[in-house]
Amino acid sequence: MDKTIQDGWKTVRFQGSTPQVEDETIAIEYPMTVMINGEEFATMVCTPTDVRELVIGFLASEGIIRFFDEIKSIQIDEDQGFAHIELYKTLDHENHDHSKRFIGSCCGKSRQFYFKSDVQTARTITTDLTVTANDCHEAMEALQSSSDHFQKTGGVHNAALWIDGELVVIRTDIGRHNALDKIYGYVIENNIRLRDAVIVFSGRMSSEVILKISKMGVGIIVSKSAPTDLALTLADDLGITAIGFVRRNKMNVYTHTYRVKEANNVSIE
Amino acid sequence: MDKTIQDGWKTVRFQGSTPQVEDETIAIEYPMTVMINGEEFATMVCTPTDVRELVIGFLASEGIIRFFDEIKSIQIDEDQGFAHIELYKTLDHENHDHSKRFIGSCCGKSRQFYFKSDVQTARTITTDLTVTANDCHEAMEALQSSSDHFQKTGGVHNAALWIDGELVVIRTDIGRHNALDKIYGYVIENNIRLRDAVIVFSGRMSSEVILKISKMGVGIIVSKSAPTDLALTLADDLGITAIGFVRRNKMNVYTHTYRVKEANNVSIE
Repeated sequence: MDKTIQDGWKTVRFQGSTPQVEDETIAIEYPMTVMINGEEFATMVCTPTDVRELVIGFLASEGIIRFFDEIKSIQIDEDQGFAHIELYKTLDHENHDHSKRFIGSCCGKSRQFYFKSDVQTARTITTDLTVTANDCHEAMEALQSSSDHFQKTGGVHNAALWIDGELVVIRTDIGRHNALDKIYGYVIENNIRLRDAVIVFSGRMSSEVILKISKMGVGIIVSKSAPTDLALTLADDLGITAIGFVRRNKMNVYTHTYRVKEANNVSIE
Repeated sequence: MDKTIQDGWKTVRFQGSTPQVEDETIAIEYPMTVMINGEEFATMVCTPTDVRELVIGFLASEGIIRFFDEIKSIQIDEDQGFAHIELYKTLDHENHDHSKRFIGSCCGKSRQFYFKSDVQTARTITTDLTVTANDCHEAMEALQSSSDHFQKTGGVHNAALWIDGELVVIRTDIGRHNALDKIYGYVIENNIRLRDAVIVFSGRMSSEVILKISKMGVGIIVSKSAPTDLALTLADDLGITAIGFVRRNKMNVYTHTYRVKEANNVSIE
């Protein structure tokens, strides 16, 4: 059974003023509550695929864990929409501050952080990986041809890891951030080295997206969509090459442009 | 000064393999922390326009207030990104449960709620407002012609109220939900009657979007994008007519189809 879409929603489809009843295919949205050591931690809505990876990646993104072996057990209750996580450590009060506001003055990293947990977990990327413009387009085409749900329902985002010219893993979710967390969970559980990895992404590059890939340790993101200014400032500070609007044969390289080989032919002051 | 976009981000633009340095216009993303009675309540990222309305709408969406006159004072610190709210009431522990998971059995309203606060604040819509297919397209065209930022930066969403054939208010944000909260804040502060209102929206119809318009008391939503299955189940339960994919001369009516006049010419079992 496909858990990403639901068929057969009776819909009145209009062409001009002419109605016709048809069965539509709709993206599934599913509430999932994360319980840590028996306490309610957060509720997200997601596409109910790769839920285990989603939860692992979410815990890592939030700075609750850094390694997979910090997790004692994960139990997913799909019927009720609960993920029960037991950690070896107790979740002290400091960890509950994950979404508390941080006002930076000078912390040695980006001043653009707004959550305390990001200050601890985001890191500056120093990979010497480079790509060509053609690589970026190939990676985006691979993402799009591997994922037909977006075409079908118009409602999901895709994220993938591209390493040495191949898509290693691709994940789908109605939430942009969830698609990345599923990748992150996969990476942590399978101990994937990310020095030579590119994130390929269908969604917009917001600050949260850049923070996530900085936590993962990836140096290049290739996106079909637009960035925000805060995302670019963070990418600049964190050593990440942000490439957006990768469509047809065009693309924009916004930060750390030297990682795209041909970009070194022009000077950017 | 335009607070929605920033000009002049030095970008290497590629056409094929040919790079060229250009100044790009980027959507602004801004962190804003909401303090209630001196306590940190939540941090969101937003487009820093109509921030006061955003905060008022957010408080209403979260079930913290129902009426504008529950607010003693609002002070926006734009430099630091803080909104200081004083309420006449104290924020008791129950109000802090706003994002706690709710598992419904039989609460007299939708069983699809997943947050406790939604059970208290979402309401079933009973308006006898009707529209034509042409109205929906006119409303969407009005939204799109009033908002050129999306074309410019590819990064923002728009929401508007359409009453008696006119856009009464239009709001923009990088966050879909924020755009709606800005509308909600405007409505609450200005005491707008919504019985005859349609929400016009550029973004996807998720469960959160439907819950927000149910809290506002609007019966029809017209969106350029796709819905999720949970959103449609909620719309069905809450008496909301959800219309999606309003593009060119096509559109899909998913729920409570009788509010679109011509839809009554076909039977939907």
